Order: sequence, then C-alpha cells, then structure tokens
Amino acid sequence: MTTRGSLLLMPNTLDLGAEACDLRDVLPDGVLRRAAALSYWAAEDARSTRAFLKRVAIIHPLAQTLQATTITELPRARKGTTDAPPASAWRQLLQPALAGHDVGLISEAGLPAVADPGALLVAAAHDLGIPVCAMTGPSSIVLALASSGLNGQSFAFVGYVPQEPGARDARLRELEALSRRLRQTQLMIETPYRNEALLKALITELAPSTQLSVSWGLTLTAGGTRSNSVAEWRQRPGDIPERCPAVFALLAR
Amino acid sequence: MTTRGSLLLMPNTLDLGAEACDLRDVLPDGVLRRAAALSYWAAEDARSTRAFLKRVAIIHPLAQTLQATTITELPRARKGTTDAPPASAWRQLLQPALAGHDVGLISEAGLPAVADPGALLVAAAHDLGIPVCAMTGPSSIVLALASSGLNGQSFAFVGYVPQEPGARDARLRELEALSRRLRQTQLMIETPYRNEALLKALITELAPSTQLSVSWGLTLTAGGTRSNSVAEWRQRPGDIPERCPAVFALLAR
Repeated sequence: MTTRGSLLLMPNTLDLGAEACDLRDVLPDGVLRRAAALSYWAAEDARSTRAFLKRVAIIHPLAQTLQATTITELPRARKGTTDAPPASAWRQLLQPALAGHDVGLISEAGLPAVADPGALLVAAAHDLGIPVCAMTGPSSIVLALASSGLNGQSFAFVGYVPQEPGARDARLRELEALSRRLRQTQLMIETPYRNEALLKALITELAPSTQLSVSWGLTLTAGGTRSNSVAEWRQRPGDIPERCPAVFALLAR
Repeated sequence: MTTRGSLLLMPNTLDLGAEACDLRDVLPDGVLRRAAALSYWAAEDARSTRAFLKRVAIIHPLAQTLQATTITELPRARKGTTDAPPASAWRQLLQPALAGHDVGLISEAGLPAVADPGALLVAAAHDLGIPVCAMTGPSSIVLALASSGLNGQSFAFVGYVPQEPGARDARLRELEALSRRLRQTQLMIETPYRNEALLKALITELAPSTQLSVSWGLTLTAGGTRSNSVAEWRQRPGDIPERCPAVFALLAR
C-alpha cells in the first residue's frame, strides 16, 4: 500500500491589492521551504498561486518549474446556482495525496478555509483518511483581535454583514446585543470599497459605550489599528485608507 | 516631543510542555529579527520569555544581553481576589514606549491577547496613543479551525468549559444548540490532563450527526487532527496523546 501524502494548508500573504510585503515578515522559513517543495496545489485562484510561487522561488528554489507544477482551482457552484460542487469534485483534487504526494491548499490571502474557501476540501481529506497539516501564517482575524485590546477569551467571527442599509443596521444591533449577552468580541469583514459605509453605520448604530476597533492593512507598513469607544469615534471620526482590507471588531459594555 | 515606540504583539511557539519545534517553522524570519532587537518586554511569564529569547539568539544575535533586557511580568489580580489590576499598573509597563522604545508583549504560547492575558495592556496602549503592531505567528485556534474542515466563515472561540460534569455537559449542549442556530463552528480548549474527560463528554452529549474535530500538538511533528461525526467517534473512540495541548471544535448539522 502506498503511504498517503498530506494535505498542507498553506498560508498566503495579506497584501492582495495593496503594497507588497516581504514574504519573510509573514511566513516562517520552514513554511516557505514546504511551499517550494510541492508539485500539486489546490487553489482558490491559479493566477495568484503562480504569483505566490514566483515570490517563494526568490527565497527558496522551487523543486520543479512552475510549468511542471499542477495547480487546480477549487470547484465552484455551477453557474447561476448555489449548488455545492459534488463530493467527487473534491476527491479528484486529492488523487495525488492518495498516490503518495503532498498537496497544498492555498487561498488568495491568509489561511485557507478560514473566512475563505477550502473547508470542503479539508473535510474530503478527513473522509479519505488523508492527514491534514495546517501551517503558520498570517490570519487577519486573529491579528485584528490581538490588536484590538478587546476580549480575546471569547470571540466570534461572523463574516460579512448584509449590504442593504436596513438589514445591515439591524444585523449590527443584533451583534451588539449578542456581544453584550455573551461578553463576546464580534469580528466582521467588508469589501474594501464598502469599508467607509460600514464604519459610518457602526458609529451611528452602536451604543456610545460599545468599544469599536478597526484594523487595516495588517502586516503592511501602512497598516494600523484604532480602538476606541463609539462615543470617541463620534467625536473624532477618522478614515480607513482607501482600497485597504480592514477587519472590524466590537465589544458591548 | 519624543516619537513614541510601538507595542509589538510577539507570537510564541506552541510547544510548551511538549517536544520543541524549530523556531523557523513557526515564526517568520522578520519577526525573529524584531524579537532579537527588543530591549523591553511585558510578559505573561518572565522565565519562559528568557527561554524564548535564548532560542531566538541562536538564529539572530540579541541586540543586548539577556541581563540587560528588561522583562516585566503582567500585573495580576491581588491574591485571593479577582480584582483587575489598576490602570496605572498597565501604564507603568508602557513607559518605555512613551520614551521612544518599542515594547514587546509575549505570552507563554501562541499570540498574546488571544485566549491569553494581555488584552488590557493593548487597551492601555490605545488609550495612551501608542501604536499597536501584531506580528504573525502560530495561533492554535485558527490552525485547529482550518484543520477541522468545519465552517470557517462563521466561528466562535469560547475558552474553557466548566469542570463540574453537570455544568460542563449542560454547556456542551448549549454550545451545540448555538452552533445549530447560528451555523457557527464552536471552538474550546481544555487543560491537557482533562482532555480525555472532555472528549468523552463531547462524544456522549452531542447528537450523532454533529461534526466533532480534535486537533492536538499543532505545529509539532507528533500533532494531528481527527474530524468525524459524533456517530463515527462513538464507533471508533480513539485517544488524544497524553499531556498534549488540544483544541476541540464542533459544528451541529
């Protein structure tokens, strides 16, 4: 029987669409070596995976040329539907692991399967008895949480809030009530071009005593975190740099 | 006016009490360089901080001797009380930053202020206008979440569950109900010597269709993740290696 390969969860940088960071500031050397050695990748996006591997190759030569590297994009729902891809589509991506080769899973930014696609591939690996190994890299959610000074003993990440203003504002008040009841920090993300609108809504909808933290450009030199009560945000509004990925955290008091 | 230093949130390894990992597998080279350059530390534990700096020094020489490095432990509640230390105690630790020096915050394992002390120091830094910069390193919570294959678009970390069996089992059923209602992965940790008891309780209390993932020894060669339905855990129970830190995740279906 062939020894199975592993599914390696490979972190990517957080500099998508912003200034490029130094790979060695956000990825351990051992992780870069593992990335350089892989021949098979399951990717959220093939193009950004090739760009990532070109950056890796400057530090550690790739074990084979990019042309000889197999990069397969994750299956998506059929066009015009929200049907999940069939289990067979995920298993197909794991064939190299069944044949003894390690397979890397990578998303466009941060850790795969955390606020990103890929969890169904990890689940398929467990079903097939393929070992899963997560490697260390930047996660905007925990970096934002640590930077916020809010409760790190109990926290929730809730993804995106609704776009429509009425539904969005109701959701923000619901998250604040949940935060108060569970004493739990609530974290959310937004598409960069809607950051400004979400920040305004948070400042308007939340109670003055609620603590609101915004982190932008995490791991980048232009990045930062502002954590203040909503009352202070109202007195001194402030902006998030344009087109900059941001994470929002709130804790009701 | 003196330019202020920053509060650097410095990740530590996850190998506390277990086999030692290679620092270069879990900490980016740029982060190790920043650690080697610091003269002031606020630490969960001074002894483990010195041990960490000795390991860093093998890779990058420290800017000054360990003897010349100021390591101050975080203030704790007064003995026999749960009173939070006064704000002045936190501000004292940040004096070097006000005088222009960077200060590192480090815990015994993982990221400071995430399932660990330190959030009050971060909050004090924001109050004083001291920039806060979180650096990339291993977080057992997100590594366990990524490895679980459970929902990474919505998740909560709830810390420890009660020790007393009746209260613990009620809490586990409450978390399962919350997971079902919010479609949210619920993550928890336990003191290693109680891992076995918690695993048994999870397998007994949760519904057969609930997905249960256990990750142990994350970032270590002996580490692993098992993710199965509770029905499968009942058929084939399995153990967690002794004295090994573990993270538990559940998702109701």
